[in-house]
Amino acid sequence: MAPGLELLPKTTALPTKAANAINNAVYGRDSDVKFESAEKHQRVLNVFRAFIADLVQQYGDGHPGAPMGMAAIGIALWKYVMKYSPTNCNYFNRDRFVLSNGHACLWQYLFMHLVGVKSMTLEQLKSYHSTDSSSLCPGHPEIENEGVEVTTGPLGQGVANAVGLAMATKNLAATYNKPGYEVVNNMTWCMVGDACLQEGVGLEALSLAGHWRLNNLCVIFDNNNVTCDGTADVANTEDINTKMRATGFKVIDVYDGDSDVVAITNALLAARSSTKPTFINIRTTIGVGSKQAGTADAHGAALGVDEVAKIKRAFGLNPEEHFHIPQDVYDFFSDLPSRGKTHEAEWHAAVAAYREAEPVLASEFDLRVAGKMPADWTKYKLGQNVKNFLVGTADLTPSVNVAYKNKVDFQSPDLKTACGMSGNYAGRYIHYGIREHAMCAISNGLAAFNKGTFIPITSTYLVFHLYAAAAVRMAALQGLHQIHIATHDSIGVGENGPTHQPIAVPALYRAMPNILFIRPCDAEETVGAYIAAIQHDTTPSVLALSRQNLTQYPAHSSREGVQKGAYVFVEEENFDVTLLSVGSEMAYTMAAREILAAEHGIKARVVSFPCARLFELQSREYKHSVLKPRAGKPAVAIEAYPSVGWERYADAAIAQNQFGKSLPCKEVYEHFGFSGKIIADKVKGLVDEVRRDGVEVLRGDFRDLNGGPSVGVEHPNVP
Amino acid sequence: MAPGLELLPKTTALPTKAANAINNAVYGRDSDVKFESAEKHQRVLNVFRAFIADLVQQYGDGHPGAPMGMAAIGIALWKYVMKYSPTNCNYFNRDRFVLSNGHACLWQYLFMHLVGVKSMTLEQLKSYHSTDSSSLCPGHPEIENEGVEVTTGPLGQGVANAVGLAMATKNLAATYNKPGYEVVNNMTWCMVGDACLQEGVGLEALSLAGHWRLNNLCVIFDNNNVTCDGTADVANTEDINTKMRATGFKVIDVYDGDSDVVAITNALLAARSSTKPTFINIRTTIGVGSKQAGTADAHGAALGVDEVAKIKRAFGLNPEEHFHIPQDVYDFFSDLPSRGKTHEAEWHAAVAAYREAEPVLASEFDLRVAGKMPADWTKYKLGQNVKNFLVGTADLTPSVNVAYKNKVDFQSPDLKTACGMSGNYAGRYIHYGIREHAMCAISNGLAAFNKGTFIPITSTYLVFHLYAAAAVRMAALQGLHQIHIATHDSIGVGENGPTHQPIAVPALYRAMPNILFIRPCDAEETVGAYIAAIQHDTTPSVLALSRQNLTQYPAHSSREGVQKGAYVFVEEENFDVTLLSVGSEMAYTMAAREILAAEHGIKARVVSFPCARLFELQSREYKHSVLKPRAGKPAVAIEAYPSVGWERYADAAIAQNQFGKSLPCKEVYEHFGFSGKIIADKVKGLVDEVRRDGVEVLRGDFRDLNGGPSVGVEHPNVP
Repeated sequence: MAPGLELLPKTTALPTKAANAINNAVYGRDSDVKFESAEKHQRVLNVFRAFIADLVQQYGDGHPGAPMGMAAIGIALWKYVMKYSPTNCNYFNRDRFVLSNGHACLWQYLFMHLVGVKSMTLEQLKSYHSTDSSSLCPGHPEIENEGVEVTTGPLGQGVANAVGLAMATKNLAATYNKPGYEVVNNMTWCMVGDACLQEGVGLEALSLAGHWRLNNLCVIFDNNNVTCDGTADVANTEDINTKMRATGFKVIDVYDGDSDVVAITNALLAARSSTKPTFINIRTTIGVGSKQAGTADAHGAALGVDEVAKIKRAFGLNPEEHFHIPQDVYDFFSDLPSRGKTHEAEWHAAVAAYREAEPVLASEFDLRVAGKMPADWTKYKLGQNVKNFLVGTADLTPSVNVAYKNKVDFQSPDLKTACGMSGNYAGRYIHYGIREHAMCAISNGLAAFNKGTFIPITSTYLVFHLYAAAAVRMAALQGLHQIHIATHDSIGVGENGPTHQPIAVPALYRAMPNILFIRPCDAEETVGAYIAAIQHDTTPSVLALSRQNLTQYPAHSSREGVQKGAYVFVEEENFDVTLLSVGSEMAYTMAAREILAAEHGIKARVVSFPCARLFELQSREYKHSVLKPRAGKPAVAIEAYPSVGWERYADAAIAQNQFGKSLPCKEVYEHFGFSGKIIADKVKGLVDEVRRDGVEVLRGDFRDLNGGPSVGVEHPNVP
Repeated sequence: MAPGLELLPKTTALPTKAANAINNAVYGRDSDVKFESAEKHQRVLNVFRAFIADLVQQYGDGHPGAPMGMAAIGIALWKYVMKYSPTNCNYFNRDRFVLSNGHACLWQYLFMHLVGVKSMTLEQLKSYHSTDSSSLCPGHPEIENEGVEVTTGPLGQGVANAVGLAMATKNLAATYNKPGYEVVNNMTWCMVGDACLQEGVGLEALSLAGHWRLNNLCVIFDNNNVTCDGTADVANTEDINTKMRATGFKVIDVYDGDSDVVAITNALLAARSSTKPTFINIRTTIGVGSKQAGTADAHGAALGVDEVAKIKRAFGLNPEEHFHIPQDVYDFFSDLPSRGKTHEAEWHAAVAAYREAEPVLASEFDLRVAGKMPADWTKYKLGQNVKNFLVGTADLTPSVNVAYKNKVDFQSPDLKTACGMSGNYAGRYIHYGIREHAMCAISNGLAAFNKGTFIPITSTYLVFHLYAAAAVRMAALQGLHQIHIATHDSIGVGENGPTHQPIAVPALYRAMPNILFIRPCDAEETVGAYIAAIQHDTTPSVLALSRQNLTQYPAHSSREGVQKGAYVFVEEENFDVTLLSVGSEMAYTMAAREILAAEHGIKARVVSFPCARLFELQSREYKHSVLKPRAGKPAVAIEAYPSVGWERYADAAIAQNQFGKSLPCKEVYEHFGFSGKIIADKVKGLVDEVRRDGVEVLRGDFRDLNGGPSVGVEHPNVP
């Protein structure tokens, strides 16, 4: 590559021949780009921008500014740079594209239409913001629609997803490619706006991309200097290029991103041969061509009927024609389906040759492409032996206990650390640093690379899931298969105190659609939790595990019981009370059961309740058999989390409706009323009361035996 | 200041005279530092480190490494640099100190003891990790204890808190100081470790500090190059100094942070005269003096009995003596109480003179110091007229509707934006950029500056609270008064689709201790929500507001009702069913009520339920009067959020247990079963069933009339 490309002065669109000459000089034989003329580019840009203006005007709502501003970038990507197959969007070795600024989705939809993605018809495009519930053009791109790699929308996460996609390629390539046989070598392209470079999750992910030297990742900055509140400098005046270089990226500037397709293409192609991840800073004009151009007004509102007409006239288009794409514009993109077929054929040929040369590896590779684990996977230690699993931690290796024997770290092979740790891209243990949100958002990219090829495992303390939950939610929304090991759960974390005791976190995951939050009470239930997490392969799971050692209940606990969400742990004929319990609190519950029997003659049956979501999926009969009818025999839930949610299954709770405290494990439990004796006393009180007063429980009478939630804090030392 | 200070070579401890000479040459008359000798410094360091080792050894648990490594930084701060008064930790104009790496709290506790903070006795120090539930030495620093400015622990947030504290000073200074009368001019010092510079929330906050040119903020990096997983370069190899410069910081290096108290002090003092925020990169050795020095083993575990003895011998201390602080070490710090009294006296004198010169401003200033709003505050538009309120947004000014007439932005007065927006430090409208987590964590710092002096208001979409909830949780834990405006709630956000529809977020806040999550149904209830949020002054509030316009119910809605959490919205003699509803769904509920009456002869009373937490605080009698007994008359909750939690008050729910969809507001509601007609049909079905089958509802029989939560996702287009 020519030195100093990133310092090239502002370019203007070049005549085709000159552009091709520069291109070939810069990229040599790697590049087969033959540019169309600057006039043709401008024609496509005009039609594209007018079409976007029409689409947003149709229902008077949507995001026109970024799609119009990014039009030239789109031509560079879809016409000249990306390797993909529009008639088979999911072929395995395709370049991955992520629209991290997801509100610009019309841009992606319209290019998908132009290059020949079948499902993206003209009628579909017009369904954007319509009342059509079968629209393939939602307000942000969604993974379930053909040609979309990940669902984006909450800003900053897309760039982290892209890091995960790029890691997936690196890992597969290092594991399976052999000299002369490249079966995986795709690039990941990620479009970002200002927001993705301001959001913490984006910054965390970019730091990791630089650290891992993911030179197959190209981050494309739509630098229009506009956010909702005005120009971006209202809230951000940092030197982004210097910052990105310090983060480990190669930085390339493009100065005329509105029309210079050649300069953009050259910059993008330079990313293919970079030894670092690449950051391309492209200056564009939001809403270019409209009177709102370059202002926040172009961001999230229709431009106005008159203005749309004016734009079309200025573009040399007929203002009376709406949603019109002339044939010459279709023609401009007409070579792409066949080029896509060529990419596919080349890959199939590469794989066929590979199967000949490396039959053992190839059969494993085929399994991975099919998204399968080895048929005999249950025989192996999963993290250690099954390559689908990528096990990571947010800098808590000594605490979360997910490292395995002979682990190899996922690292750049060039890395030399001060402590002598090393790794390579085939490594499957991932040090994410202290970056929980990026860890989970990157895991979404890993899982989205291809269904089943990777099953990412993350690990951190449960309380830090509040840093990461926005990403876990996106996994649930997309149905991505992944397992989150969330240790140090409940108040049992002890001395680290209330900042580290995750009081309200389970309530979030227990309410969230399509997620399994599983809190096992011993090792047997933990096995059951892993089985559930692995078998539900379109659902992420969070396994909440304790810091402290737990009592084991081999006579009671059951991995099969976990699959049903809740099950009878100890049955009791002629019982007086049912105790529902979970996780670390099972030991206190079982101790209370013994005291109730021995000291008070009260018979308590016990139900273990590791996963309410799985229990909800069971039959009514099964539920009744576990919960038993009310009939004067109260059910009490015992868990050191807020009582909310237990009302469905119990009449009372011994719960933790307040923040915790810094005390050793046993003492903090006792401080908040969790000991066999205290629980037995409270349960006895309730049973006595029910015997005395009868069973009628009025609506709203759920009993928080440990005290309900309070409001307000007294700080005697704060003035 | 001498140019190029940041480029000074590695220094070694200097003899006192030379150190003082350099100090005076560099800082001129601003500095009155008279250094003690290098020998004395070393003596204090040895005793300090041995004491830390003893403390962690006592119960075999805790964090010794960072406190030992940061000892010299502590001497520089507490002995030479910070302005504070150990016998009156809360005097208003004190320098603020934040330990963002909160696990190093022993370091802070021990310095507090040495400089004479009365409550921090030797016995208290020894209560670290003990079973003493009245300990003032929890595992992370907590705001309720004297001398601690904010509770820290979840990494990265402390640095954002510090940005808030520095903003508070800037705002007060710009509002009240007059030439010759400086009544507020304190610095904010923030200690960070590697984690705070990796966590996204820290990076977001640092970008803002640079943007706002908060030159009263000094971030001190304990650069020991060690994290839990090994040396920090296992997960981070970026060039932090260059990155911080690009972010707008002045950067100063200190190469011997283990012992060179003079170099550290000089660097810290340089921050006082910087025109930018300052980042001091201090190389230290974690666990210095132990065999674990410089390794992850020194981070979070006791060093071992033998090793502690060895350390003491190497330090020239008696290994038989535990928890021993010789008199000469106390003497070293003995001037600090009187120096603190001098700082206090100077401030009181300055305020006294100010009262003479500026009586009107001074009386307002005195109110602010007392943490009060103007006595007649109810007469004003709060954001616009009451200076306690700082109103901010994460780049959603056009959407969240919290900007007020003639707002002045909080900005550096030097800022010139491309769009012509400007501001100054007296401005009270804050553009946080697209950084929700930093917005909320910074708000914690603003609120913690002094109780009541500031009441921060934030604004963003409710769904983005999942980016920020870890900070809001810290506000709840600390009892900080603040108001979060969370708009675009529920599925009503519409076309932006499921990524922007915050299905599970309310469940988190409704379970979280000490927070009010209020979801008003119309303008009157919104007024009630603000009143509740303002009156609960040791509790943060989240006000969940709609994007769409809502029907107003002047005959039914009540601001007083909001204070009780739930209240009867429409009473009905001889009712058949009670409908509980909230927020945007009230309109569908009221429409259903009419249809039930007109078409089915079913009488429905309606309860508005804006805040379950406030309702839980009411008397049992009041609750029963609102909810009414079961007795064959079911209660149905109607809300487009998951049903969990409604079991306490209702027998059934028409809820949203799945993710949303990209459709216009009305259509998305109807798509998921929220229309007067669909609700009426479902309620009628339930009423018919209860009439037919009687009232016995078995445990676990809560009825999700819109479908319960499901597991698994079908993506036909994903292979």
